[in-house]
Amino acid sequence: MSDAQQLKTLSWVAIAAGAGYVIGKKMASAGGSCETKTRGELIDGKAIAAKVKEDVKAATQELVALHGVKPGLAVILVGERKDSQSYVKNKKKMAAEVDFHTVDVDLPDTVSQADLLKEVEKLNNDPKVHAILVQLPLPKHIDEPTILKAIKVEKDADGFSAANIGNLCLKGGDPPLAIPCTPAGCIELLQRSDVEMSGKNAVVIGRSNIVGMPVANMLQSCDCTVTVCHSRTKNMEEIIRKADIVVAAIGKAFFVKGDWLKPGCVVIDVGINSVDDATKKAGYRLVGDVDFESAKHVASKITPVPGGVGPMTISMLMKNTLNLARHSIGLERIPLRRQQSK
Amino acid sequence: MSDAQQLKTLSWVAIAAGAGYVIGKKMASAGGSCETKTRGELIDGKAIAAKVKEDVKAATQELVALHGVKPGLAVILVGERKDSQSYVKNKKKMAAEVDFHTVDVDLPDTVSQADLLKEVEKLNNDPKVHAILVQLPLPKHIDEPTILKAIKVEKDADGFSAANIGNLCLKGGDPPLAIPCTPAGCIELLQRSDVEMSGKNAVVIGRSNIVGMPVANMLQSCDCTVTVCHSRTKNMEEIIRKADIVVAAIGKAFFVKGDWLKPGCVVIDVGINSVDDATKKAGYRLVGDVDFESAKHVASKITPVPGGVGPMTISMLMKNTLNLARHSIGLERIPLRRQQSK
Repeated sequence: MSDAQQLKTLSWVAIAAGAGYVIGKKMASAGGSCETKTRGELIDGKAIAAKVKEDVKAATQELVALHGVKPGLAVILVGERKDSQSYVKNKKKMAAEVDFHTVDVDLPDTVSQADLLKEVEKLNNDPKVHAILVQLPLPKHIDEPTILKAIKVEKDADGFSAANIGNLCLKGGDPPLAIPCTPAGCIELLQRSDVEMSGKNAVVIGRSNIVGMPVANMLQSCDCTVTVCHSRTKNMEEIIRKADIVVAAIGKAFFVKGDWLKPGCVVIDVGINSVDDATKKAGYRLVGDVDFESAKHVASKITPVPGGVGPMTISMLMKNTLNLARHSIGLERIPLRRQQSK
Repeated sequence: MSDAQQLKTLSWVAIAAGAGYVIGKKMASAGGSCETKTRGELIDGKAIAAKVKEDVKAATQELVALHGVKPGLAVILVGERKDSQSYVKNKKKMAAEVDFHTVDVDLPDTVSQADLLKEVEKLNNDPKVHAILVQLPLPKHIDEPTILKAIKVEKDADGFSAANIGNLCLKGGDPPLAIPCTPAGCIELLQRSDVEMSGKNAVVIGRSNIVGMPVANMLQSCDCTVTVCHSRTKNMEEIIRKADIVVAAIGKAFFVKGDWLKPGCVVIDVGINSVDDATKKAGYRLVGDVDFESAKHVASKITPVPGGVGPMTISMLMKNTLNLARHSIGLERIPLRRQQSK
């Protein structure tokens, strides 16, 4: 496939989901494919997320220099859940590292829905804020969909609004303003690892709104032949065995075994499951949906857990924020990966 | 599966896409499945479309009687293309038969985009109009997406707006206000033919915005394991051979051969292709994407062309219009198929 063809093929997914802000750099173009003979090469999510972060930082500096606009990310945290605090801390840390303007709204878990809505409204009207993130889950007395729908689509940091999802699925229309971060991270990992997608069989395990459904639509935009498996699927092993690319997002530790995989396939493991481990200080460790130890001998490329998809999610949130800031002044999304890999 | 489970499973697709307005009637519940031994039973789209029409008519009479609201459908036709005139005529005919209020806007093909937008705006503001349909294609000097996006989402008769498509794909959120008519017709055909969908392998051939993409998402909502094939798919025959349900929407005459099919599968043929036929007065005849003559001996149920999916499209447009009228006064969509088939 020629560069021009591939550019056309990747269409807005490459542009929007983000094949990498490669501006003025020449990409390594190894032309790796699912049939490569190398087995078990690690897809290093940490390293790729760091590259995305660098690219976002460079593009942010350019936006400030040329247009005087600093991307602004607001994060609303309700209550004192330790896991939520930790996620929010990481998001704020990276936002600071890429020189974003940030707004922190910390509310007690007794906050009323009406008061929370007022905070969202305030941020909707704050011209310095381009992206709003409400950390989930919210306390039970608050209706999450009501809060999420209150966020202006132009500030939908997570890309979960119906309009953004619709534009993600529709071909040739308006591109979505933001794209769900974890699935966008999966595509970015594939693209930055030079995995050929056109015409490949991709199997997505799981059909959630936040991963399975959007990643399936994005893989299809990249010309994969996509099958989505889920809890009702009867012949999962048989289907996975045909896959050149497997995206596992079903939330079950060690679910996919190495001997279910087609030799040479590429595995993107979205799962983050904790399993008991007496050798660890915490008493547990995090593992994916794929049985990494057996899978790494069969796959040609595979993401580890942790250190695979996980680190990408926050980088993609930064990318969404940058692009929403650009959109706010009528700039188009940065044409990512200006240099196509061959 | 219990009725209650199935009701939950079908979720809003059954409600919104329309498993049939069975109000006060008991459905025949043959429990047909892909494994039935009967071969080549015709799925009679004409008869099923007529039933849908009857149900829409009954529900319209109820809406008028109880709420004084008559569903209103506006159809904008630009220019004098014979095929467009014929489609519009059929739509108006059925709208009259189900006692809808109709508004006809016929414009010359010299109309400016600005004037066409004014007509859309007028209809957006007309409280008697609940659904607006702009017959495509439009003359080349008019930008179709601009016109379609000008239609209020509350009056989007075709269900193609990003918000409606997004809500179609998202689970558990707001249901779409309207659903693309042809894919909704495919689901209705399957449901009214008592085809079990949960856990079945469904293969959709084609990934268009108007058929392939939405029907794939709807089949997934009905708990099928869905694979979408398209022009870049390399092993199409092999994939189709695994399918319990095949939806062909690729626009190529006789594309799917009988010997590609799994014995006992169900075939929904969306294609409408004209092929030369000297025995016909017109010199051509219409055929589907499936080679019907060979497929009918392999499939357990199959739609003919013409007389399969085709007649459903207009009936589903009527259903969308009815539901938009209900939505306009805060009524929920009619809970279709109140009696689940077993």
